[in-house]
Amino acid sequence: MIVKELIEPNSIVIVGGSNDIRKPGGKVLENLLRGGFAGELFVVNPKETSVQGIKSFPSCNELPKIDLAIFAIPAQFIPEAMELLANRGTRAFIVLSAGFSEMGEEGKKLERKLVEIVEKVDGSLIGPNCIGVITEKYKGVFAGPIPEFDTFGCDFVSASGATAVFILEEAIEKGIKFSSIFSVGNSAQIGIEEVLEYWDNNYEPGKSPFVKLIYAEQISKPKKFLKHSLSLRKKGCKIAAIKSGRTSAGQRAVSSHTGALAGEDAVVEALFKKAGIIRCEGRLDLVNVAGILLEQAPKGKNVAIVTHAGGPGVMLTDTLEAEGLQIPKIEGEHADELLKQLHFGSSVSNPIDFLATGTAEQLDLILDYVENKFDSIDACAVIFGTPGLFDVKNVYEVLYKRIKSSKKPIFAILPSIYQAKSAIEHFKSLGGHYFNDEVAFGKAFAKAIKMQFKQFDEPYQFDDFNTEKIRQIIETSSNGFLPSKKVFKILEYANFKLVKTYFVASPDDLKPILSNIEFPIVMKVDGPIHKTEVGGVITNINDVETVREKFNQLMEIEGATGVVVQPMASGVELFFGCKYQEGFGHLLAFGLGGIFVEVLKDVQMSLSPLSKTEALEMVENIKGVKILEGYRKQQNVDKNSIAEVLLRLSQLVEIAPEITELDINPAFGVGQDIKIVDARIRLQK
Amino acid sequence: MIVKELIEPNSIVIVGGSNDIRKPGGKVLENLLRGGFAGELFVVNPKETSVQGIKSFPSCNELPKIDLAIFAIPAQFIPEAMELLANRGTRAFIVLSAGFSEMGEEGKKLERKLVEIVEKVDGSLIGPNCIGVITEKYKGVFAGPIPEFDTFGCDFVSASGATAVFILEEAIEKGIKFSSIFSVGNSAQIGIEEVLEYWDNNYEPGKSPFVKLIYAEQISKPKKFLKHSLSLRKKGCKIAAIKSGRTSAGQRAVSSHTGALAGEDAVVEALFKKAGIIRCEGRLDLVNVAGILLEQAPKGKNVAIVTHAGGPGVMLTDTLEAEGLQIPKIEGEHADELLKQLHFGSSVSNPIDFLATGTAEQLDLILDYVENKFDSIDACAVIFGTPGLFDVKNVYEVLYKRIKSSKKPIFAILPSIYQAKSAIEHFKSLGGHYFNDEVAFGKAFAKAIKMQFKQFDEPYQFDDFNTEKIRQIIETSSNGFLPSKKVFKILEYANFKLVKTYFVASPDDLKPILSNIEFPIVMKVDGPIHKTEVGGVITNINDVETVREKFNQLMEIEGATGVVVQPMASGVELFFGCKYQEGFGHLLAFGLGGIFVEVLKDVQMSLSPLSKTEALEMVENIKGVKILEGYRKQQNVDKNSIAEVLLRLSQLVEIAPEITELDINPAFGVGQDIKIVDARIRLQK
Repeated sequence: MIVKELIEPNSIVIVGGSNDIRKPGGKVLENLLRGGFAGELFVVNPKETSVQGIKSFPSCNELPKIDLAIFAIPAQFIPEAMELLANRGTRAFIVLSAGFSEMGEEGKKLERKLVEIVEKVDGSLIGPNCIGVITEKYKGVFAGPIPEFDTFGCDFVSASGATAVFILEEAIEKGIKFSSIFSVGNSAQIGIEEVLEYWDNNYEPGKSPFVKLIYAEQISKPKKFLKHSLSLRKKGCKIAAIKSGRTSAGQRAVSSHTGALAGEDAVVEALFKKAGIIRCEGRLDLVNVAGILLEQAPKGKNVAIVTHAGGPGVMLTDTLEAEGLQIPKIEGEHADELLKQLHFGSSVSNPIDFLATGTAEQLDLILDYVENKFDSIDACAVIFGTPGLFDVKNVYEVLYKRIKSSKKPIFAILPSIYQAKSAIEHFKSLGGHYFNDEVAFGKAFAKAIKMQFKQFDEPYQFDDFNTEKIRQIIETSSNGFLPSKKVFKILEYANFKLVKTYFVASPDDLKPILSNIEFPIVMKVDGPIHKTEVGGVITNINDVETVREKFNQLMEIEGATGVVVQPMASGVELFFGCKYQEGFGHLLAFGLGGIFVEVLKDVQMSLSPLSKTEALEMVENIKGVKILEGYRKQQNVDKNSIAEVLLRLSQLVEIAPEITELDINPAFGVGQDIKIVDARIRLQK
Repeated sequence: MIVKELIEPNSIVIVGGSNDIRKPGGKVLENLLRGGFAGELFVVNPKETSVQGIKSFPSCNELPKIDLAIFAIPAQFIPEAMELLANRGTRAFIVLSAGFSEMGEEGKKLERKLVEIVEKVDGSLIGPNCIGVITEKYKGVFAGPIPEFDTFGCDFVSASGATAVFILEEAIEKGIKFSSIFSVGNSAQIGIEEVLEYWDNNYEPGKSPFVKLIYAEQISKPKKFLKHSLSLRKKGCKIAAIKSGRTSAGQRAVSSHTGALAGEDAVVEALFKKAGIIRCEGRLDLVNVAGILLEQAPKGKNVAIVTHAGGPGVMLTDTLEAEGLQIPKIEGEHADELLKQLHFGSSVSNPIDFLATGTAEQLDLILDYVENKFDSIDACAVIFGTPGLFDVKNVYEVLYKRIKSSKKPIFAILPSIYQAKSAIEHFKSLGGHYFNDEVAFGKAFAKAIKMQFKQFDEPYQFDDFNTEKIRQIIETSSNGFLPSKKVFKILEYANFKLVKTYFVASPDDLKPILSNIEFPIVMKVDGPIHKTEVGGVITNINDVETVREKFNQLMEIEGATGVVVQPMASGVELFFGCKYQEGFGHLLAFGLGGIFVEVLKDVQMSLSPLSKTEALEMVENIKGVKILEGYRKQQNVDKNSIAEVLLRLSQLVEIAPEITELDINPAFGVGQDIKIVDARIRLQK
């Protein structure tokens, strides 16, 4: 949906271009001029003949064919002007002005009008209510700051203009560069998903920017979002995103901000996990993660910390270790050799502390050892500020040179933002970017690295499903909860293991069962959905007498259609769930049963369809995972067998997407044997 | 231990004062001169007659009596010079030079020598190996930056000079001011504890600074640390601290940094909690918390977010809500009234979003409503940056004025560090300090507020302890684990509730028991410490026959001295523990038993002696607390009754501090009935 003219226009008109640079129409023109736009520039402003040195036209009627039109006039005048330009061949439009769907019904209508005009010419519309677009060719924004262009800088799309501005403030301060910026505003036609699509379709390995940043308040087209994020990730891109509206108060705030629905956060979390997107909490976090992603990815999780100050070295060590990374002890011949070349009192055991008296030459030497001699090290963080006694420019030059040339990633943490200000500016002018707090860096690093190691394998497919029979049941059933018999049938056709289950409708049916089954048994009412609540579950029945008595008792419960008889199952209780989420597809859940799910909320979720890796990760990531490993000599439960249940669940809802809810609760696991005791399925066709 | 001359010297000599300001002896002199020290300045430097315009003496021998001596000469020459000065009446000493205990045995000896000299004159020694001291009177540091003095600015003590420097870099940038700074270096005589003691003893409400900041790598005198922190807190001070070396790798790093032992982190965590100290993770976090503490404390947890940009408002809402604060919806007459006075499209429902076009006058109005009309609001965070179209100086002036005058605390989040740089500088020049990331602010705020609401009630005392009998057992027992009988006796004298317990040494003793007890029962071997592991616990015994059989079986276990017979207990399993921590005292632990403690590590810890509030907090803060509240119609366990067990435990180890380990495991709780099934006690006298 993004046309070439939006990215690489040869001509641009500012409709509403102004001499007053405190106005959007003035500022955007100033930015275009300062940004050195090499094509033709036009202004439409009936009150002026020349604006900021550019010839001004009284109306759009008199313009030649123009590639890109940027609007900075009141909302109500835009459709007419846009129509005129569209008729003359313009296909790319950026509407900076507010006063559209964010303002109620009238505005919505106006906004739809814009989309109609643009769609008629197969064009692109950015906005309305946005700060604009920056590409290599032009700086079409009315709000600053304008970051430095870099072919391999970040690509950035934001649903909020002001937030984009504030992210850029922080990013520029840290030396982060950008390749393109899209402020999509109301996303009338082009939203975050369409920008992702464009990046995906135009990605050329080795030639395109590989770091993508996103600020979103809602994911309006989750499948599209997932498709292109996943595709970009598989091509080697790295993606970091803020999705705000995590909490209920935050969701209320989102809705009052843009009228959007932030949606349940668990499903957003699952979407990001599936797509391999690093989720950031705020602006600082996003900028730190961006700084990490711009460097090459480390091969492993072993970090060397090089510092001239002990304290920050300790704090970074603490942070990285707490977040699951390693700061391996460095020792041996090479370590001894290096230590001899540092000042007395230095330490190389990691952190490598070369003291407040440490020099540029020593840093150079240390980084050489880290790169070439210390084989166990995958990445390196250098902390270097100044007590203010001398200039550290030469140190930062060495650091920058090493960052550029090293086979291992090196990250610069420069804490003296006040005393070493000019040296930091020098470091940035060379092309460097930096972090200023080791703890914030450490947290961002751990998060980024974890996602970078993510494997993208294909959804798993069993070939033992009786798909035809499953579809038959689905198609012949009506909406709502399925009867237990059908539920068990579907699970059997999907080759789940079930506890031997008898459906009994009359006392006479009990006989053959009782001669087969081993006591103790459990009896449950069939019919009511919430069995426990109506006293419909009786466990630990040990004799025939009681069976008959309880049968009659259960049949008296309202809604009872029969009784389910099963041998008592034992093992570790397991819970599997699945819920359809509008737009996102099926969200699968796994946890240990009962208290673990209901009180401790120890549940892992993933979006269907699952790969083997994803299913196994769900199992391994529950907090109570040790219980599966055979806690206190109890029998273990095989993780792969649990993962298999999840994979079957995933395949089942792919075959039968009409299943909007599916709970397997409980199942019991002993070793490789995972047996389902009860389940329920809800259909919505 | 801190003498007046260290804080308010009338004369200072720099031993090793230099003209070269790249050297510590030059820089410290420059800072004293620039800092406008009003007393007499002297320099000792045999190579010069005048240093930076100050008369230089060839040796300490020729000086008059001087209040404070600052040393910037090589380590080995310091004792002699110090001795000379001490003999002439100097009692305050700051040793900047390194080369002491951090350098091994020789250095340690040299350092002890310094302490001896200082102690002889009842003087004070700061350092060695530090960056110096800043008080209202003088700026005696060789490393910058030098923050602005403010009577009600922060007091700051740091165990690491470089870390202090880097914290100041961040703090100054944010407009944070300071009252005093102590870099204690090797803490030869004066360490963090002595500085806390000084602050405590000299605190005058309404006249002294009330925000105390600490950077520590070890707590060498925990009891002293606790005593003075607690006292300061009770006087109304607020304390925030970084204690690094949280992880095992971090502890290794601390040890290689300063040779100190970081110690187990759980006990540090407990110490901070007890003292009401806000623990910070890193420099940025500490500075953010400091900025919050410098403002008045809010009366409650309801926050209004005022913003001119939606996105950051949402992110702050998310953060605060996730951290347990409230962003209550604002509605009603006053809200409608305010809304009418803002631009069309604004929202006042909280976040109060007055749009990118929001003005200074509108901000003024909003803050007036927040202070005077919106009664549900306790605190307010204002987010205001700039898209770069116009100057926001006037907005920041209004903001500062309101911060100063408002009855409710207002916090300034200013994200445009680049485009609004000069306006931010103006805000700082007025006296303001600011935050630049709403998420980092929100996290710091939540943490700070939580600790601010902490109540400091006195340790609880039962009067039903038979202290004499307990002491008797302790005094007549030898080191190691006590026999079960003695353990149960001690617990009885401390009035714990125990499951009825019979100690059986021979088969004949069984008879009277079996006629009394109700089946099922449990039988346990007495003697071995790890009973389960040797097959020494047999549960669910239902008949006399089995009792006799199992008795013989248990007596055959190695180390068996008898058999313990108890009725089977039921209820929610509970675990109570206590361990003596050298220097810190007894660390008490509580958790639900078994998996909850061992797998999920859901344990709360506190240092003895406990107050009622502390005990109840331990119970309420476990993650599985809902289980105590009667999960799924199971019986609840009364939290106060659990807290009582903890309070008794705390009183017991205060009476009998020789108890180095005490485990109550398991106990079972039903309603108010908490019965102990098994316990063990280890003594070390």
